[in-house]
Amino acid sequence: MISIDKDLEFELGEVTRRTHNMGIPVMIIIEGAPASGKSRLSNALYMSLDAKYTNFVATRPPREADLRYPFLHRYWYHLPKDGNINIHFRSWYSQLIEYKDYNIKRNINTDFKLIEEDMKNFEETLTNNGYEVLKFYITTDKEVRERHIQNLKDNPMLKWKAEEFQSRLQHHDYDEEMEYFLQGETVSPWTQIDFHNKEDAANTLYSAIITRLKKRIKAEHKNKPKTEGRFSDNFKTDLFTFDFDKETIPKHEYKEILPDLQARMREIQFQLYQEKIPLVLVYEGMDAAGKGGNIKRTRALLDPTGYKNNAIGTPTDIELAHHYLWRFAKRTPRSGHIGFFDRSWYGRVLVERVEGFASQDAWQQAYEEINDFEKALHNSGAVVIKFFLSLDKDEQLKRLEDRLNTPEKQWKITEDDWRNREKWDLYLEASEDMILKTDTEHAPWIVIPANDKRYARITALKTIIKICEERLASKNKSV
Amino acid sequence: MISIDKDLEFELGEVTRRTHNMGIPVMIIIEGAPASGKSRLSNALYMSLDAKYTNFVATRPPREADLRYPFLHRYWYHLPKDGNINIHFRSWYSQLIEYKDYNIKRNINTDFKLIEEDMKNFEETLTNNGYEVLKFYITTDKEVRERHIQNLKDNPMLKWKAEEFQSRLQHHDYDEEMEYFLQGETVSPWTQIDFHNKEDAANTLYSAIITRLKKRIKAEHKNKPKTEGRFSDNFKTDLFTFDFDKETIPKHEYKEILPDLQARMREIQFQLYQEKIPLVLVYEGMDAAGKGGNIKRTRALLDPTGYKNNAIGTPTDIELAHHYLWRFAKRTPRSGHIGFFDRSWYGRVLVERVEGFASQDAWQQAYEEINDFEKALHNSGAVVIKFFLSLDKDEQLKRLEDRLNTPEKQWKITEDDWRNREKWDLYLEASEDMILKTDTEHAPWIVIPANDKRYARITALKTIIKICEERLASKNKSV
Repeated sequence: MISIDKDLEFELGEVTRRTHNMGIPVMIIIEGAPASGKSRLSNALYMSLDAKYTNFVATRPPREADLRYPFLHRYWYHLPKDGNINIHFRSWYSQLIEYKDYNIKRNINTDFKLIEEDMKNFEETLTNNGYEVLKFYITTDKEVRERHIQNLKDNPMLKWKAEEFQSRLQHHDYDEEMEYFLQGETVSPWTQIDFHNKEDAANTLYSAIITRLKKRIKAEHKNKPKTEGRFSDNFKTDLFTFDFDKETIPKHEYKEILPDLQARMREIQFQLYQEKIPLVLVYEGMDAAGKGGNIKRTRALLDPTGYKNNAIGTPTDIELAHHYLWRFAKRTPRSGHIGFFDRSWYGRVLVERVEGFASQDAWQQAYEEINDFEKALHNSGAVVIKFFLSLDKDEQLKRLEDRLNTPEKQWKITEDDWRNREKWDLYLEASEDMILKTDTEHAPWIVIPANDKRYARITALKTIIKICEERLASKNKSV
Repeated sequence: MISIDKDLEFELGEVTRRTHNMGIPVMIIIEGAPASGKSRLSNALYMSLDAKYTNFVATRPPREADLRYPFLHRYWYHLPKDGNINIHFRSWYSQLIEYKDYNIKRNINTDFKLIEEDMKNFEETLTNNGYEVLKFYITTDKEVRERHIQNLKDNPMLKWKAEEFQSRLQHHDYDEEMEYFLQGETVSPWTQIDFHNKEDAANTLYSAIITRLKKRIKAEHKNKPKTEGRFSDNFKTDLFTFDFDKETIPKHEYKEILPDLQARMREIQFQLYQEKIPLVLVYEGMDAAGKGGNIKRTRALLDPTGYKNNAIGTPTDIELAHHYLWRFAKRTPRSGHIGFFDRSWYGRVLVERVEGFASQDAWQQAYEEINDFEKALHNSGAVVIKFFLSLDKDEQLKRLEDRLNTPEKQWKITEDDWRNREKWDLYLEASEDMILKTDTEHAPWIVIPANDKRYARITALKTIIKICEERLASKNKSV
């Protein structure tokens, strides 16, 4: 057992009680080769922190189920909420080392440079949003490791653990692989800890955490200016100006085309499933633009075990206590599955911007974060398509009034719809900014005139089918 | 596609909006053989319900990772919160059918009668706590199934799905296996739905849900009497009366024994891991009884990747909107892992009883629910041990005052500690009731006099080691 300096332990307790009370989320990452001592050190740290807000997250060697999600999924999933502490025993770094091995073995052609970029973007997003990310790398010389492994070997009950260590050490040269990361450019700096003497190692670890968090607490106390969203005085847009009269599909034509497209969509679902390609479909647009009905037409013939329809409402308390992408990252579809998002993470730059729930800094930095997030989905193999259903102000009024006057539709209408309508121009401006800043090659925006619901539905369906067909064709070509 | 009667769909919408607003959780279970039409029917239902509070939960064929948790774990995990609706596409029933096959193939000796009992207890717990559990079984004659499979076969892109259906139909006689459940005693009744005509089938399904939920809504409107916890006037106990002076261990002896027990505990952890036995350790006791310190001594040499320390505090909003066992069932350790619970589900019959957070009905029915819950852990292979650390009232005062007077301990003490102390007798009575009603063979209570911390720590460690050794020995014998 490592005996911990009582004063240091108390000081660590004091400091983390403060970050807890101030709502600062902390992620402590502990990397190191097998048998380097990181397990003993992590256990000491785990015992020194308050279990009420400390979570121990171990990265295991990848299993089939893990590989079905984007590379960073489990870290998004386990993101600490405000004021909580995660101890990451091995992290995205050793996960990458092991994924490399796994993929090479299976001859899967993954560009790991892209994953490295995702990792960097992830740390950047965390840091920019107030997460304290502390990275430690435990080093030992070979002799100390060998001695530890020999100790285990001498105990018949622990012998298998020694063998596991040895096999993993034969497999990967962690030191060499980690050296690459330690030398490279990084968002949050690494602290190296020599485990030659375990008490010294613990002192270094505890002191480093205390120093870093104290600095943060001090910085937090300075008054930060709160900037709210600002808008141009005279907003003009061409983006949402269509010839709405032209963009229509007559009923008889719609009835003729729709079933075939739905049947084709069903085939697409099964093909994506077979090829293990996940599909992310985002629907944004003004109130009453017909998002739900549009999604329904696409879902009509799908196998319900292979898709989820995520209707996004007001965030819960727990969701508000996390990074805004957390609740969406958790719902990322696994490979071969489809995730519909009836409203999405774009709420950050739409409703949160317009209503002032997010500061100007926050929503302005969100564009890049969202691009990074979608890039990571793309890098993990997903097809990402985003629809913006646009209708004009008169058509919205007609639909809202129709809801009001039709007993079966009254439940659909709320005070919010009228309030939002008053801010029509602000929403339009936010929408245009959003589309201009987040229309990327890997996650394109499709703006659809939606005054005619039939036209909007057919266009969305055709677009999904076309993009998926292209992707399936390119996949087949590369094999 | 199934075309749904518009009036029925609207009525279903109305009824479920009401159950949602009233906070009634609903679980709709849809079972049926492969290719019986349940996927089309479930998709129609999924589309008719409000996605904001409807969740589609598909039971997949078991994977290695699923098998590492108790049989009902995924259903506990996905339990709908108050006002939400789950559509369970296949449920614990088809899971049992497939587990049987899986276990028989691997020659694992599991008593499935016990699992059936767990399932019944689970439904009973749900029903007694206000969950509406609706169970549907979709039937079709062979001809209709064959036709459906043939249709799939004719499409080159869906052919593999047809083959999957066929292989599963060859594998299991779902109809026969389900017949057994349909005939058997059940908590929530089954409704059989003939899929011969798909529109009729949908009408039957929707009508059955509407009728059942309307009945529930009506019943809910009757005023329910609220009964609060009541206690005997003059509570006397022998259970917590020890000769505290006798139950001590001198410091030098403690220092000599402790390291060996901790080293042995580490071996036990590795042995349990190898044998895939989960270990659940519950710690209850008065404030300042030394639970945290006791747990720390047991954790000292453990591998932190193989255990979780769950320190249980006040439930969050989300947790309060679920059955009280939900937040614990989610934290059940997987096979080979250890879960410490520093306070636990027994809060239901301790603090919630004493403070009146739970009605008398609620905490009284909790004893059986808790016994069922622990029985299910036991049936899934877990070792369950529960400690009650008992100290006398004077010793508590001494410790609370010590905390108050020692700067490093002050953070530990809150107003609650003094408030709880005033209710000492009520807590004692609740504790005695708890121990008498939930001390079972498969999850025994160990009451430890805790005036002497050293004695309490050594006794807990020795007890864990002894019970685990017995379990490991019996496991080895049976192989």
